[in-house]
Parts: sequence; structure tokens; C-alpha cells
Amino acid sequence: MAFQYLTNISLEEARSSYQEALLTRGFAAGQETIPVSEACGRITARPVYAAICAPHYPASAMDGIALRAELTFGAGETTPVTLTQDQFVVVDTGDPVPENCDAVVMIEDVIRQEDGTVHLYAPAAPWQHIRQIGEDICAGEMILPSYMEVSPSAIGAMIAGGVMEISVLKRPVVGIIPTGDEIIPPTANPAPGDILEFNSSIFSAMLKQWGAVPLTYPIVKDRRDEIEAAVKKALAECDMVLLNAGSSAGREDYSAEVIRSVGEVLYHGIAIKPGKPAILGLQECKPILGVPGYPVSGIIVLEQLLKPLIDRWFVRPPEEEVIRNATLAKSVVSGLKYQEFVRVRLGNVDGKLMASPLGRGSGVVSSFMKADGIMEIPQGTEGYAAGSEVPVHLLKKESSLRNTLVAIGSHDPLLDEVADLLHSADTTLSMSSTHVGSMGGIMAVKRGETHVAGIHLLDEADGSYNVSFLKKYFPQGGVRLVECVGRSQGLMLPVGNPLGITSVNDLTRPGLRYVNRQKGSGTRILIDYLCKKEGIDTTKIYGYDREEFTHTSVAAQIASGTADAGMGIYSAARLYDLDFLPICMEQYDLLIPDSVWDTDVVQRLIRVLQSPEFKQRLTALGGYECENPGRVRQHL
Amino acid sequence: MAFQYLTNISLEEARSSYQEALLTRGFAAGQETIPVSEACGRITARPVYAAICAPHYPASAMDGIALRAELTFGAGETTPVTLTQDQFVVVDTGDPVPENCDAVVMIEDVIRQEDGTVHLYAPAAPWQHIRQIGEDICAGEMILPSYMEVSPSAIGAMIAGGVMEISVLKRPVVGIIPTGDEIIPPTANPAPGDILEFNSSIFSAMLKQWGAVPLTYPIVKDRRDEIEAAVKKALAECDMVLLNAGSSAGREDYSAEVIRSVGEVLYHGIAIKPGKPAILGLQECKPILGVPGYPVSGIIVLEQLLKPLIDRWFVRPPEEEVIRNATLAKSVVSGLKYQEFVRVRLGNVDGKLMASPLGRGSGVVSSFMKADGIMEIPQGTEGYAAGSEVPVHLLKKESSLRNTLVAIGSHDPLLDEVADLLHSADTTLSMSSTHVGSMGGIMAVKRGETHVAGIHLLDEADGSYNVSFLKKYFPQGGVRLVECVGRSQGLMLPVGNPLGITSVNDLTRPGLRYVNRQKGSGTRILIDYLCKKEGIDTTKIYGYDREEFTHTSVAAQIASGTADAGMGIYSAARLYDLDFLPICMEQYDLLIPDSVWDTDVVQRLIRVLQSPEFKQRLTALGGYECENPGRVRQHL
Repeated sequence: MAFQYLTNISLEEARSSYQEALLTRGFAAGQETIPVSEACGRITARPVYAAICAPHYPASAMDGIALRAELTFGAGETTPVTLTQDQFVVVDTGDPVPENCDAVVMIEDVIRQEDGTVHLYAPAAPWQHIRQIGEDICAGEMILPSYMEVSPSAIGAMIAGGVMEISVLKRPVVGIIPTGDEIIPPTANPAPGDILEFNSSIFSAMLKQWGAVPLTYPIVKDRRDEIEAAVKKALAECDMVLLNAGSSAGREDYSAEVIRSVGEVLYHGIAIKPGKPAILGLQECKPILGVPGYPVSGIIVLEQLLKPLIDRWFVRPPEEEVIRNATLAKSVVSGLKYQEFVRVRLGNVDGKLMASPLGRGSGVVSSFMKADGIMEIPQGTEGYAAGSEVPVHLLKKESSLRNTLVAIGSHDPLLDEVADLLHSADTTLSMSSTHVGSMGGIMAVKRGETHVAGIHLLDEADGSYNVSFLKKYFPQGGVRLVECVGRSQGLMLPVGNPLGITSVNDLTRPGLRYVNRQKGSGTRILIDYLCKKEGIDTTKIYGYDREEFTHTSVAAQIASGTADAGMGIYSAARLYDLDFLPICMEQYDLLIPDSVWDTDVVQRLIRVLQSPEFKQRLTALGGYECENPGRVRQHL
Repeated sequence: MAFQYLTNISLEEARSSYQEALLTRGFAAGQETIPVSEACGRITARPVYAAICAPHYPASAMDGIALRAELTFGAGETTPVTLTQDQFVVVDTGDPVPENCDAVVMIEDVIRQEDGTVHLYAPAAPWQHIRQIGEDICAGEMILPSYMEVSPSAIGAMIAGGVMEISVLKRPVVGIIPTGDEIIPPTANPAPGDILEFNSSIFSAMLKQWGAVPLTYPIVKDRRDEIEAAVKKALAECDMVLLNAGSSAGREDYSAEVIRSVGEVLYHGIAIKPGKPAILGLQECKPILGVPGYPVSGIIVLEQLLKPLIDRWFVRPPEEEVIRNATLAKSVVSGLKYQEFVRVRLGNVDGKLMASPLGRGSGVVSSFMKADGIMEIPQGTEGYAAGSEVPVHLLKKESSLRNTLVAIGSHDPLLDEVADLLHSADTTLSMSSTHVGSMGGIMAVKRGETHVAGIHLLDEADGSYNVSFLKKYFPQGGVRLVECVGRSQGLMLPVGNPLGITSVNDLTRPGLRYVNRQKGSGTRILIDYLCKKEGIDTTKIYGYDREEFTHTSVAAQIASGTADAGMGIYSAARLYDLDFLPICMEQYDLLIPDSVWDTDVVQRLIRVLQSPEFKQRLTALGGYECENPGRVRQHL
């Protein structure tokens, strides 16, 4: 059962020798002839020369009269020239100028007489107001060189130049073959063990963005002969093939074997993370990529290995990466063996660009959706400490980062609703939330990493919330505590409370499976306090060390039957139709440093909190009390 | 026949009151439900919440065995724990973890025994290597807020979250109605007076880039009733309507009348140039734009008035303009009455960003294709002097401007071929040529505006080319003269030379129509010299003041029969199958300042000149002699 990848080659080397191998075997785009009117965004395969001149006849550039200029010589304010009807021709803009005429006089300067003659009070210069043949484009002129992207105005220029069809680079057809016994087409009702096949949807969307044509094949079971047949069919129909999943070392991973039988495997195993089990294969000049099954690994393999091939195909330079230095909000440890790509959220807080690493689990596709940037940790580097300045490849525009409200602290579903209200009111604004618990929020404020932190911290001494913690952690002041909501905390329980739980004392019962929140979260502090008050030994609670980071994920465990109880807020219980045993009302407030109080994003947040729409959303969620959200409760 | 536009309202005011009027009447995007897999690039109409958790069951994160962690407690290097076959389950990555298990041990750490039991040498921590339900996404969590563009990874996150369909903003259908008696569908063989209808192709491509759906109607003749019927049909089928041409003051311009009869006209006439005859009309909440017929006017009206409406429709912020200061290469005069948009070419020469205004004739669609930037001249400003620092809105990336070889000087078709060879060898490189004649090229080099200038200047004193001009204009040195080609100059004549022209002496013949090059061009200097030598009075040559800027445009006039003779090079005559009366061979060289000699773009140019491909292209063009192109003839 042991397995070694064949290679642990560096990304740089893999990429260049893969390209080299393909180019040697004749990898290049085909060409096709298409109508110019459909060519926007396509790449020219050869230079485009004008077939005719534009204009293709001498055209009047004005509404007016065409005439011979010499007839008007000597005309002046007091010595008008009179032209008879046979000496001029009325022309509209774009009309051909008659062959014996060499000038046009604007209609505004033409004084018509009752007898049909006209008076002119100024001489016309020869060739005035005539668009000469070829003024815009001359026949034979190169309109576009090879390998240029066709723009809307280039379409106009080509048609004006009499070019109706052009030769462009074909779009590469990329076959995607999903494999795996557990893989099923997307459905909202999967059974346990079913894995939804959404990689092909992600890959297709990426391929379209890069100008390729995705072609997704039906799911193939984990059988060597079926996979081989599918790869052969795809090779016959496509320019490149992605064999998805089966590139790792599991019991039924046939990808490398199959690729070797239809072509060659250049490398199996690249020194990158995620993405290391990638297979770089080929048949003649057609790439066959063995793509790991986890979506984030797959995305990185496509970005790092397929995108450069598609750029080569289109003879276009790789997109430029915008790299900026950011301060790392928490430490990231990386293995020496791999080059690692870590997705980060970015926020501009008080003029400082902060990077918070997102979940690195390879299944976490949502982290890719939320990412504002990518931090690369080179091979041979152990990672970076919190507070380091690290180079980050931006995925968003810098201006939009300046308009992002950063929220790091305690989780509440109301934050999503705030984000939606903020963005709906002004789509230049967005919100980036990271759930690290109340204490994590306080630390993020102290380190200047966040605009706002949701906190709900109980002072065991007097039962008050939040204020005493502020005094302790911000002895110098400089922060405001903004009122948000009162919310109902309690035990979330399966529907009908089958175990008949009536208090926290029941949590130690044998066989009861508890699910907890992470240390430092307000809810963890609350359950710790409740247990202490009741004299409960928490090591007796099975699952007390099983930690989730949000109220909803605790609720999700209970709803799915993998846990029997968990502490959380009413709105989360309601979301999953769970029973709820209320324990207390707590105050959930927002902590905001003075240094960012006057920023646009923070002031827009305050307005959202004060809006009637916010109260409507709270009512819909349930379990909240709210008096004066947005009011400053305390200013230290 | 006199006409006043109804209004000369500022662009800013027109834009905002037009939007205001439409919004008041209910202008907004409709919504539609589409499969998530097809949603990339679409805009969400409302928040998207996860329907299920991802993962939706506790899944093994590794290939290995699932077990209860407590069975392994106490395992160590010297004290392995033995598990019997009923105490563990073999799992692959993604397999469900059985209900009674709470940990997974990686296959690498599992030592199988012959009897089917396994040995473990380290304890397993509870919940290790298990992807908990909702680790990625929890049911009920907001995946995307309203009005967000859907990315490839968001597609993955939505499908993982059990969302198969989402509600997105409809794409607006924009009807385009081309009108005009002279307008014909694109063809390579138009008759004089025929105007090719390519505006709808340009507009369609622009609309698609903005996310709208263009719908082009058949061309409508200049008849009020037909236009009205077409507008009514379009209003019934589309969300917005563009009525193209007929918005000006010509004899058959019915646009404003028609719009008024089906809806209202808010403004007719905007203080912008090009684009002033635009009509801002509407029927209820549907915009009806009267778009001027000239393509450049139309493009600006779409960019300035329609694009903001489409942005509004999609509730997306307007694209950010990148503005940079550039030095203006030549003076631009503008009317006080209008805000003017001038397309410019940009080049980074010796660290300085230079802007050369492109042709401003409203028919000149090729200038839009060539533009690297747009310079705005505000209403009430008379223009800018050469050498001014002006703000320019960039249309290209700054990095690509750094990779642009700027050529300002004498025209030769070989420059297009050089541009193609340069770009084909490395698509990050491009070339921007402006044809201002040899003397213009020398001045551009003096002012530091160009990397290279093509020159062919005859020294009347000794018959030499170029060198003596260098000594005169660059007494301090600092320039290199690079050998390019010898080329054959002569008189271009209609096929068969029907007027029997045998020398320049024939040009004064009555009835003969000459076409000249502009003053300062090497070819003009040559013909001036030839006439002087022969004692010819050039005021006797009809058309001597009719000036064209390139060899090809002179050839085009002759080929089309609007002129009988013109001076030019053999390759231009050949391009148009003209007769050619050779007069002399001249030396066409490239002047390059020392300050840019070592730059990458210039060195790449030299390599192109020295390449065999360059000689092949010259042979194909004809009329060139070349010995050592790329060699430095003179270094001052």
C-alpha cells in the first residue's frame, strides 16, 4: 500500500520542460477562417491587409454643396460670388463628390437665392471638406499584425477596409474527463459518500475565461479499461485532455497507468501544494494532464500548468501579476519539500495592507471564492511568522481592496446580512469576514488588522458584557464599542430533544456526543463559565475537544446526527430546525478602533446598522433583540 | 436648411439627468433563474445561501483506516497498539467515516500484519483527518451576496452547497437599428456612394464586452414611417434601443421626430466632440439613443452614455480609469463649445510618456483601433500646446506601453512588416508608427519623442542621403543612422500610362491632375528638387497642393481615377497595380537616438532588420535593394 510519487520536480522546471516537450512534438494552434463581425476577442493568425480603401470614393465630409474651388476665388464679405444651379451639386455627408468638383462648402455658408442660384461670401480652398479616398485606410495597408486580439474598432476598420473574413487561431478544445466510483452529477440531495462532481463546472468556467472551449465527458467509473477508452475518445476529439482525479495514490488510481498506455508520462508529482499528485502527460503534441481530485488542487494545477499552455497556444504573453507587500495576520507553516500557494484575504486597514490566510484544507473550495490574493511560499522555506511582510499576488483591484470592510472576530450569521446590505447599497463596497472568536477579534484590533471585531465576552465577576474586557486590553483607549444586538444563547439539540436534555449538567451523560466551539470564542468562554459555575468536569464531556469555528457549523453537526448537543445562538438553531434550550441573553457588540472610525467603509457600516433593513433581516433570522444598533456604547 | 441642435448640454449633466429620468420611470434589470454551471460572469440578483453542508457527511481526508481514537491511546514507538479487523475500516480519501469512528490514521502509519490485524506506533487524536460536516460550507450560510459577479470557484462553492440554480440579473437586450438610404450590408465591392454598414458590428462587439445582448435589425431606409415601425418593433423586443444615424441635421434625419412620436426626447445635442448630435430619448423606462452615423461619434456616445446605463443595470461600479500624465507631441486645438475626446498613441521613450494625437476626422475608425489612450479636452478649453503635460486615460496596460517601439517619421509599407515581425517574435512587443515625413521624424528625435525615425533626405549639393542632415540638425551628436533599404522612387501612373507621361516635365500639362505628398516629407522634397532642377513652375501643376501623408494614399488616389500622377515608391505602385516610371534610387534609413539605443525594443528592432525574414518580406513588396540592414552607417 505504500506509494512514492515518481517525481518531486519544481514547478518552474516541470512547466518549462513540459512546454518544451510539447513544442518539440508540434504543439501549436490550428487556424480557422471566420466572419470579421464575429471576431471580437479572437487572435489573428496572420497579418490582415485592407482590400479596399476607406472611404472608397471621395466623400463629402459635410452637408453642403460640392463645386470647383476655382469658381469661388475672390469671394469676400462685400464681394459675394454667385453660382448658378449647374455650377454646384447639393450633397449630404457621405455623398460622393462629383468627379469635376474639388471642394465642398458647408450648408451654413451657402446663401440660397430665390432664383435657385447661391451666394458665397468666402472662397473655398481646394479639397476642403472632402474625405479623400483612403483617408482612413488605404488598400494594402496592414490593419492588424499577426497574433493581435481583435477589438470592436478593429472590426470596424476591417469591414471598412473591405475585409469580410479573417484567419484566426482556433480555440483549443479541452476535454474534461471526471472519474471515480463515488462521483455523481450535481444534486441537492446527495447520499453519504456521494461526491458531487463540480470540478468540471469550475474547470469549464476557467477554460472559457482563458479563451478555450471546454468539453465535459460523462463520469467514468474507476475501471482501467473504461478510463482508457474515455481518454482515447477525448484525444480523438480534443486538443488537450484533463483526466480528473485518480492522479494520487489511492487504491483505484489508474490515471498514470492509462496515460502511459496511450502516450507518455513526463512527470508524476510536482513540488507544489496543493497540487502535488499532478501528472504531466502527452500523446504526440496533445497535453494530457492528470489533475488531482480536490477542487483546490485541481484549480492550482490548471492555473500553474494548463494556463501557460493555453497562453502559448494563443501566442499571448502571460497575464501580468500585480504583486504587493502585505502584513501577514497570522503565522503560516509550510513544508520544505513543496512550493506552497496559500489563498489570503486582504484588507486595507488604516493604510496598511493586511493578509489573512484562508483555510488550507484541500477540500475547501469556498476559500478560493473568498480569496483576494495568493501568497507563494517558496520550496525550501518553512513559512512566515505573523507580522511578516510578504509579497502577495493580488486577485482584486487595489481600489476595491481599499473599499473592503475587514471584520475579524466572533461569528454571527447577521454579519453575512450586513455584508449583503453594504454591497447592495453600493457595489463598490464589500466586506471580508474572518471568524476567529471574540478574543481573536480583540487581538486583531490591537494589531491594527481589522476595521471591526464582533465580540460577546462575559465578565464573570459582574455578568456584564464586553466593556470590562475593553478596559483590560486597551488601557490607553483608542477604541469605540458600538452597540449591535442582544442574542439568545443556549443548547442546540436534535429535533424533539430525544435525549431529554434540560441543562448543561446533562452533558456529561455517557454516550452523549457534545460538539464545542474553539478556544477564545465567546461561546466557548460561556460554556466554560457555565460548567465551572455548576462544578462540571469538562473532561467528562465526550466531544468537548471537538471544535468548530462557527455557530452554524456546530448546528450542522447536530442536524446531521454526528453530535447530540452544542452551545450556540438561536438563529443558528433555527436555520437547521433544531430544538433550542435557551440559557441566557448576551450582548454582541462591534469593536472599532478610533484610527478607522472616520473611514468611508466604517461610516457606511454604521448607517447599515441604523437602517430599517437591518432590523428586518434580524427579525427574519430570529433570536435577536435590538435597541439602538449603531450607537456608541463606550468610547475609550 | 439652417439647423440648431435643441441643446448643448454638458456631458456630465446629460448623463446624470438621463439616468435620473430613466430610474424614475423604473429602469432596472429583470431577473432570471439559470443553472449554476452556466453562471460564470453573471451577476447575482439576490443573496445565495447554501442548501446543504459541504462536506455533507463526515469524510475521510486521507487514504487510511477509520477507528475510534480511544483505542489508540497509549501507543508509542516501543508499545504498538494492535487493532483487529473489526476495530477499523479501510477508507479512501472522500469515503464516509463510519458512525462509530472518530479518527482516521494515514495509510503510511498503518503496519499490516499477516493475520489481518494492524499495528499502530502512535496514538490518534480524536477527529484527526476527518473532514467534518460543513468544514467548507454550512447549510444556510450566505455563499454570495446580491450583485456579485459569479467566479469559477463560486460555481464550485454553490454546487458543493447544493445550489443548482440561482437568480441572476438578465442581460439587457439592446436593439440596433441602422438607417440610411446609402447604407448597405458589408461587402468587399461597394459602388461609389455606398456606405458600408459596420457600425452595428462595432456596437455589437462593444455591447457583448459590457455583458449586454446585441440584436441588430435590418437596415431601414430614410423614411419616417419605416423608421417609426422599426423603433416600435425594437421597443417591443428589447430593453434598450439604438437608432443609428439620422441624429444630425441632414435632409433626411428623422430620428428625433420618430423618438418624440413613440416616447420623449430629453436632449438633442450634447456638448461633446465627436458625438454632439446624440439624442437622449426614452419610452417609459427604456432608453432610446439616437446615435450619430460616424463610427467614432457613435463609439463615444455608446461609451459615454450607454455604458453607464448598462453599468447601472448590472448594479456594478463603473470601470476605473487609469489616468497618467503624458507629454503632448503636437499641439491640439479644440473648440470652446464642446468637451472633446482625442484618441492618442502613447509611447514610453527614454522614460518619458509621449502622447501623439491621432487623426480626429470623425470617419477615421482606424484611429480608434490604434489608440493607446484618450485625452479629454474640457469644455471651455482651447486645446493644449505641444510639450504640455496632459492627463491621458490609458487604454492599454502600462507595461505594454513600455514594450512599444515608437516610430515617427517617413512612411514606408515595410514598417508594417517590421511591426508584424517584431510582434510575431515576441507578442509582448508592439510598434506604434506615425507618418509625419522625414523632417517630422528628425524633429521628433530632437524632442525625444521617438525611438526611431525613418528618413530619406536628399542633399541637393552632393546627391547624398541623410548624413548631411544629421550633421546639421544634431551638431552635438548623440544619434545613430542605421542602414535600412535602398528604394526606387518614381512617378506612379494609371495602368497603361494613358496620358503618355515620360518625365516630370509632363506634369504641367493642362487637364493633368497631380496628387502630392505633404510638405516636410522626403518625397515632397524630392519632387520639389526635381522641378527646380528642370525649371518647372509648380504652381502650374494642378493638384500640387493636394497633399497625402503616405505613399499608399497617393497610389490610392491614382488607382481610383481621381488623380493622374503622383510621386512615390515602387512598392506602393505595385500594391495598386499601377504603372511606375522610375526616377531614382534613394536611401531610406532609420535614425535612432543614443539614449534609447540599448533598450530592449530598439535592440529587437535591429535583430528584425538583420533577419532573413525581413529580406523575404522586402522581396515580396518589391522595389527594394538591401545590403546590410541593421548596420550603423553613421554614429554622431
